[in-house]
Amino acid sequence: MSFLNGIAASSGIAIAKAYRLVEPDLSFEKKNIKDSTEEIARFQSALSASKSELEVIRDNALKKLGADKAAIFDAHLLVLSDPELIHPIEDKIKNEQVSAEYALKETADMFVMMFEQMENEYMKERAADIRDVTKRVLSHLLGVQIVNPSLIAEEVIIIAEDLTPSDTAQLNRQFVKGFATDIGGRTSHSAIMARSLEIPAVVGTKESTKVIQNGDLLIVDGLKGLVHINPTPEAVVEYEKELRNHEIQKTEWAKLIHEKSFTADQSFVELAANIGTPNDLEGVINNGGEGIGLYRTEFLYMGRSQLPTEEEQFESYKSVLEGMSGKPVVVRTLDIGGDKKLPYLNLPEELNPFLGFRAIRLCLEQQDMFRTQLRALLRASSYGNLKIMFPMIATLEEFREGKSILEEEKQKLVSEGEKVSDHIEVGIMVEIPSTAVLADQFAKEVDFFSIGTNDLIQYTMAADRMNERVSYLYQPYNPSILRLIKMVIDAAHQEGKWAGMCGEMAGDEMAIPLLLGLGLDEFSMSATSILKARSQIRNLNKKEMEKLAADALKMKTADEVLRAVKKI
Amino acid sequence: MSFLNGIAASSGIAIAKAYRLVEPDLSFEKKNIKDSTEEIARFQSALSASKSELEVIRDNALKKLGADKAAIFDAHLLVLSDPELIHPIEDKIKNEQVSAEYALKETADMFVMMFEQMENEYMKERAADIRDVTKRVLSHLLGVQIVNPSLIAEEVIIIAEDLTPSDTAQLNRQFVKGFATDIGGRTSHSAIMARSLEIPAVVGTKESTKVIQNGDLLIVDGLKGLVHINPTPEAVVEYEKELRNHEIQKTEWAKLIHEKSFTADQSFVELAANIGTPNDLEGVINNGGEGIGLYRTEFLYMGRSQLPTEEEQFESYKSVLEGMSGKPVVVRTLDIGGDKKLPYLNLPEELNPFLGFRAIRLCLEQQDMFRTQLRALLRASSYGNLKIMFPMIATLEEFREGKSILEEEKQKLVSEGEKVSDHIEVGIMVEIPSTAVLADQFAKEVDFFSIGTNDLIQYTMAADRMNERVSYLYQPYNPSILRLIKMVIDAAHQEGKWAGMCGEMAGDEMAIPLLLGLGLDEFSMSATSILKARSQIRNLNKKEMEKLAADALKMKTADEVLRAVKKI
Repeated sequence: MSFLNGIAASSGIAIAKAYRLVEPDLSFEKKNIKDSTEEIARFQSALSASKSELEVIRDNALKKLGADKAAIFDAHLLVLSDPELIHPIEDKIKNEQVSAEYALKETADMFVMMFEQMENEYMKERAADIRDVTKRVLSHLLGVQIVNPSLIAEEVIIIAEDLTPSDTAQLNRQFVKGFATDIGGRTSHSAIMARSLEIPAVVGTKESTKVIQNGDLLIVDGLKGLVHINPTPEAVVEYEKELRNHEIQKTEWAKLIHEKSFTADQSFVELAANIGTPNDLEGVINNGGEGIGLYRTEFLYMGRSQLPTEEEQFESYKSVLEGMSGKPVVVRTLDIGGDKKLPYLNLPEELNPFLGFRAIRLCLEQQDMFRTQLRALLRASSYGNLKIMFPMIATLEEFREGKSILEEEKQKLVSEGEKVSDHIEVGIMVEIPSTAVLADQFAKEVDFFSIGTNDLIQYTMAADRMNERVSYLYQPYNPSILRLIKMVIDAAHQEGKWAGMCGEMAGDEMAIPLLLGLGLDEFSMSATSILKARSQIRNLNKKEMEKLAADALKMKTADEVLRAVKKI
Repeated sequence: MSFLNGIAASSGIAIAKAYRLVEPDLSFEKKNIKDSTEEIARFQSALSASKSELEVIRDNALKKLGADKAAIFDAHLLVLSDPELIHPIEDKIKNEQVSAEYALKETADMFVMMFEQMENEYMKERAADIRDVTKRVLSHLLGVQIVNPSLIAEEVIIIAEDLTPSDTAQLNRQFVKGFATDIGGRTSHSAIMARSLEIPAVVGTKESTKVIQNGDLLIVDGLKGLVHINPTPEAVVEYEKELRNHEIQKTEWAKLIHEKSFTADQSFVELAANIGTPNDLEGVINNGGEGIGLYRTEFLYMGRSQLPTEEEQFESYKSVLEGMSGKPVVVRTLDIGGDKKLPYLNLPEELNPFLGFRAIRLCLEQQDMFRTQLRALLRASSYGNLKIMFPMIATLEEFREGKSILEEEKQKLVSEGEKVSDHIEVGIMVEIPSTAVLADQFAKEVDFFSIGTNDLIQYTMAADRMNERVSYLYQPYNPSILRLIKMVIDAAHQEGKWAGMCGEMAGDEMAIPLLLGLGLDEFSMSATSILKARSQIRNLNKKEMEKLAADALKMKTADEVLRAVKKI
């Protein structure tokens, strides 16, 4: 039995066999062959194996993911039967006496290059199809296994270098019991996704893909940040017990689902949820969310080849607003750029994407895209309690410009006879230090603040939260961070506005006492953290937390603050 | 006559012919040849042309730059005569009937690859030599001109995409009258270098290398940020007049060289200089610098293949301390990483280098390197008034660790019988928002602050200062920046310490009134800005500037602040 240390990214315990989600090695040497007839037969058999495999995947996708996703695999099947691709490969084998691997790769690369250079979006997608299909046929020629996460049909723990949003979208929640990844931190996408799916996860283990083999029995301990590899039976028994205790605790928390969130001394706060798609609503309701504090609209724009239409967006926003039956829903306008790219926007590469052209900066320049989103939001506003929030606001001018564009679109819609709510609050994310420092001035013009601690901390400490070499500087408890949070909350209250938080910190049990003491009005977190947080808050005394927070603001280091919090 | 708009990076006016410092196009098609004897002769003649050219460059370098730099070209000459490289090329031409270009490139690439894979540092350098020499011979074969900036022997204005520190190091100050570059901003290296060399420059013109040809007559207007291309005679006359006025003004300023820097109402400040090497001392003294506010030690580590020794560093530090005859010299410990890389440190690539593993973060991990620098500094301390400053401090723990390492080295040196000053102040750069916000706590432990506005602004506004798409957010006059500066100055004064500034802002005539009003004690800038700043300060009234600053702190936008400053 051995184990790996990592970062506890999503709490809970999982026990299951390992499934390596690792790109296979498809390299080969250029080789001349003797018998081209035999080689062509080998190629044909790899083709038909690929076809049967794709048919299974297509059928699975149709059942589990819908016709949309299944269509991708239909396109792959078409490529496999396309004589314009297949014949040149066979000719090459015959005429040049080269191996099927080489003939396939050379021919496919040529087509990919040709299609990619075309201006036509449709043709560019064909290039991606050919690339995928080539990989699959190559894997059969080389006899290596290609990973098919959508085919997983038993309980597993996924082992990967990192998980992209599209990887996680393909995973079957029924069978994926846990994650362990080599890279990433508490705020990387894979970690956020794991918490939102309520799947225990350990990230940043550095070498999980090196030391763990398919089929190894694993325990992922998402509380301590450990991955046990082939544990002893005693360890399994121990963890099974812990797992049961965790279940019992969850049952206790579940009793609070319809309760309000108040402290022991009867001070109320709002516990809201962060969501990515309308599909997440079920989780919010099942966990007693009192609102949506952050609806990340990026997912609407991702995994596709062009911008979503106004109509598509309208439907999504409407379904969330209706689903929340009048409870507040804070929708963040598009926050793309940085580590989140949209291939069809053709954004230039940047040396420091986190300090670059993203979010509101991009939206104020690419106004057509921005206006479409705002129109969809305005049209949806009459179906619930909508609040609109701009991300990455650094100056008051940006907020003013965003708001005036919103007003323009509203006037247009009204004059077109559309119904638009008259009570839409317009606020900002506070995630850039300049905005926190100048919060008193912003508070005079915005309707609310929502503090985005993930970015606020990384900019304030000048430490990339995805970079493991400086992760020790990602310090939510640094007194400077607490002071900035305090400035924002005080500024809001001074002007009779509210201040929330939608960063990871809002759901962190070590941070909640401090945030309560600092006067935070709304805590927005993964839906799965809400009941636990509510239970914690009901046991805290606000007056005492105010004392704790006041002391913390005068401390010198994050360690000092953490020690003080641990004492309560 | 046409002109280009850019960013005014270094003030003054230059009128001269264009010299394009642009990589030539050395591409060619693979070609078969008929007569290999003739082709080998063509190759031989390119070789001997390259040799004569290199001999001239070597001799020039020897005269102007010293034996060290000349040795590089001796190495290149050796490569050109090496039969182990030359014979295989000639064989290839003969046996494969290919062009000299192709034979040269293929053979050289093979050697480069071979040498680069060796672990040996010496062999890796050979790869670089071969690459350089290949380029030169190729340029002769293709009949394109390779740029040889060290050969410039008439007055020119350099046109380049960007200038690296090593480019500028090679330029002859006697002949280079101005710069214009396609990319970069006011705080890019080329801009800082231009100001320190007192060469007018316009950066970020986007297309100077596209529209300007060698020999075009140019006027670089480093005040307005304009580059005039082939101006009318009237425009030249106009600019010649302005140039003379500028000279007259400089003569006026020069009278202040031995004066103190005080305001109209007799409040004193210190005007110090930023330097990069001991060679800059002359400029500091000629411009009446009252100290060195920032000695950037990076240059000691750059343009070489291993770390500088303790002895080399000691000599540099000692010569600066002695040269300043007891005036304060603030030496910043190594600030490497981010956009400044040292090839021999093998630092990993980072997604966001400005938020990465750099400066003190690196030094606290690579302690041998850090301790060597500290020992050199401590040994030099008895030769003048040394102050040591740590860059990129984000937490108090980092400062404490840096200082305790310094103390350890001091104790060791003392016990070895070395003479070390007992009056070395130890301070920090304030360039990370967390440190500015927590300045009151830092002030209890550090001896001084020096505000590094270049980085402080980029982190506070979350905008990469090198990225043109977000350069509008690089706002020195944003009230949030002024508030952070105020926090730092007040915190220092509260504890009886001093606060300086060594960012670009300290020498900016629009910022000086505000900084004076905020109470800044020391302004450190390009030496060439000191006399102008002194003249300005003598005409300002501190009490009035305090009123201006107090108003600015309550403003909402950078524009509002700028308008207020322009009114005085």
